[in-house]
Amino acid sequence: MRDPAAADRQPAARAHRVVIIGGGFGGLYAAQALARAPVQVTLLDRRNFHLFQPLLYQVATGGLSPGEIASPLRSVLKRQRNTEVWLAEVTSIDVAGRRVLLSDGEVPYDSLIVATGARHHYFGNSQWEPLAPGLKGIEDATEIRRRVLLAFEIAEREPDAARRRAWLTFVIVGAGPTGVELAGALGEIANHTLKRDFRTINPSDAQILLLENAERVLPPYSPKLAASASAALQRLGVTVRTGVLVTNIEPEAVTLRRGDSTERIPTHTVLWAAGVQASPLGKALADGAGAPLDRVGRVMVEPDLTVPGHPEIIVIGDLASFSHQDGKPLPGVAPVAMQQGRYAARLITQRLGGGGSLPAFHYVDRGSMATIGRGAAVAHIGPFEFGGYLAWLSWLFIHLMYLVEFDNRLLVFVQWAWNYISWNRGARLITGESSCGKILR
Amino acid sequence: MRDPAAADRQPAARAHRVVIIGGGFGGLYAAQALARAPVQVTLLDRRNFHLFQPLLYQVATGGLSPGEIASPLRSVLKRQRNTEVWLAEVTSIDVAGRRVLLSDGEVPYDSLIVATGARHHYFGNSQWEPLAPGLKGIEDATEIRRRVLLAFEIAEREPDAARRRAWLTFVIVGAGPTGVELAGALGEIANHTLKRDFRTINPSDAQILLLENAERVLPPYSPKLAASASAALQRLGVTVRTGVLVTNIEPEAVTLRRGDSTERIPTHTVLWAAGVQASPLGKALADGAGAPLDRVGRVMVEPDLTVPGHPEIIVIGDLASFSHQDGKPLPGVAPVAMQQGRYAARLITQRLGGGGSLPAFHYVDRGSMATIGRGAAVAHIGPFEFGGYLAWLSWLFIHLMYLVEFDNRLLVFVQWAWNYISWNRGARLITGESSCGKILR
Repeated sequence: MRDPAAADRQPAARAHRVVIIGGGFGGLYAAQALARAPVQVTLLDRRNFHLFQPLLYQVATGGLSPGEIASPLRSVLKRQRNTEVWLAEVTSIDVAGRRVLLSDGEVPYDSLIVATGARHHYFGNSQWEPLAPGLKGIEDATEIRRRVLLAFEIAEREPDAARRRAWLTFVIVGAGPTGVELAGALGEIANHTLKRDFRTINPSDAQILLLENAERVLPPYSPKLAASASAALQRLGVTVRTGVLVTNIEPEAVTLRRGDSTERIPTHTVLWAAGVQASPLGKALADGAGAPLDRVGRVMVEPDLTVPGHPEIIVIGDLASFSHQDGKPLPGVAPVAMQQGRYAARLITQRLGGGGSLPAFHYVDRGSMATIGRGAAVAHIGPFEFGGYLAWLSWLFIHLMYLVEFDNRLLVFVQWAWNYISWNRGARLITGESSCGKILR
Repeated sequence: MRDPAAADRQPAARAHRVVIIGGGFGGLYAAQALARAPVQVTLLDRRNFHLFQPLLYQVATGGLSPGEIASPLRSVLKRQRNTEVWLAEVTSIDVAGRRVLLSDGEVPYDSLIVATGARHHYFGNSQWEPLAPGLKGIEDATEIRRRVLLAFEIAEREPDAARRRAWLTFVIVGAGPTGVELAGALGEIANHTLKRDFRTINPSDAQILLLENAERVLPPYSPKLAASASAALQRLGVTVRTGVLVTNIEPEAVTLRRGDSTERIPTHTVLWAAGVQASPLGKALADGAGAPLDRVGRVMVEPDLTVPGHPEIIVIGDLASFSHQDGKPLPGVAPVAMQQGRYAARLITQRLGGGGSLPAFHYVDRGSMATIGRGAAVAHIGPFEFGGYLAWLSWLFIHLMYLVEFDNRLLVFVQWAWNYISWNRGARLITGESSCGKILR
């Protein structure tokens, strides 16, 4: 806990205290934008690092190592003297007392930025969570990597053909950008990376199923780009099935429904990329500040991202539901969080300078993209839509540019260059034994 | 499990079956040396990767990522058509039936190479293990990294001076090469890497204690090199205490004895680099084949590395105790294991060719070295002993050369070059939360 004497040493002249909860894109960009503001910033996170989530699927598929897409928050903010970083677990928010409550203490604030994001959502079937891990954190990624690699290992030693087939069946639920990128990477692994690695099985016999409830993949993109993505997935051996609903997940099978017919597919490896649910702090803001929540628990913010009736509380990123731009909420993607983080910082600085409020937040959509294996991607940038190699190169370039630290950029570049030349994925480690139980089941 | 029909399809003309247990330096070098031999090789390992153990302390101190010092065994051996790799847990050896027993099956052999190495040894105080982790596997390294980084995080938020001091006290037990390298890396972290990262504490106030029972550090080296290593450690702020015995480890303190005086040092972070114990398969060979074991459970092998009375069983690496060269057992280091692996392969090939036995194994000692932080190391190579920058450059070069895969070499080189320029250690992640309990205590 912080020394309370130090915090209140100069009650008259003390700086405005900004507390930021969460060191993802929203929280980190807000902290950085406050570097030269006359405020004292405290950034709270449960983890000691910022994670570059758009590349998490590369860790899940052995293309990159966790350390390559994570940057220690302290190290990113070390030169910013008005900012301190605390490794802390936030339990709740005392809105009336203007304090953030921690599992082992508390922090007072004058302005609060809440940027705790979202987790996967199983639509009321939380019993599916251990059977079908989602992809939000580093441990999720290494768990998915472990399951995928282990399935090939077990198949190699399985004499029964039907059981072997079940081990070689990989099901991805949800064909948004994460599901599409995961499926593409799995297709590449099965057809290229593991080509000569096994003696009994042929990895390219693996069946990779990408399931989507909507009538096409990448629902937020145009039908043309969706068709181009579908074609690229098929070239990598991925079977795309749209218009299907997952009705059950068991340890050894997935059950689907399409119209009136149901189907049970034997598999041991189901990955969840279907839905997200806001962090529990949304609920805390609803209880403490009367914040309105949407269907998945996101805080429905004012045009200036504040909680209605509480101008001192700003909610940004995946936890915020912002519907003031064109009626439907902004998507939960990194650029929205970054721009909201910068806006939050400007709002606080503006108020402190006595300049009153700011015009409503306005998201500038510079485009979005998804890769499908190597050399293929789909992108829309401004008015342009394109696919193929050029989209893939743009994807590489943009993702490299936005990596927060220079050494990560260098390492990821070297790793990608090597993976490209060699078709290899060097980070194919099955880890997690020592304290979490045995690897072999 | 393997298809038994396939294994015995051609009982008359089937190839000689070599089973290798363990994919460390000994097992992997043996497998590679058998690439063109008229044998069928099965390499068994509990993990799917070969680990470059000499650089494990770099993972424990955030300088490298696990993926950079590990290579998937399948990928290393993919082009070797006479070899298959099984991810398997060996439970015992049926010496009479010439079968290796697995947790989920068995493998028959004609020749067996046992290369399962050693774990840390707490000299009868196994209750110390959870309090003072050793450094043998990837999970050990990420656990040590977690504890060290977490100690700084907790100290930053601890208002009480005495408790803060206990969190900033790091004790390393054992000043062999691993202990010296760990202490040097911790000194570098405290005095350089974390320099500006904290606001309340000054990381260079950390107290790093290196404890050794012998009268000097690096007992296997000459007194001159030991003195040079001690001086380099002191420059990095490490306190070296020799001639001390650790008599107790508790969650919040370590107790030492030197002569008649005892001392209790408050600390939360104790790292164990003091002793090793052979893998339990030594005991299985003692029970099943009457193999003689030494004090720490290693198999006392014949001059040709076989188990007495069982020429079909060869024991290599850290599990073997080889005393035929100059009376005392060879050290448990990578070059011994590599050379023994190659010898084992030659012995098997020679016998199959009808050439009878080989001259006794002879270890060619090409030298040894240890680094102390950046820019300093001690080395003896042949008749030469040297320290300082040149030793450090040799250390870098040799460790890069022996990394098994080219992409690891490239990545480690880039990471080292960057760490050198920036004093940074980018892989400073505190991980292990999701399935293994909470990070914050």
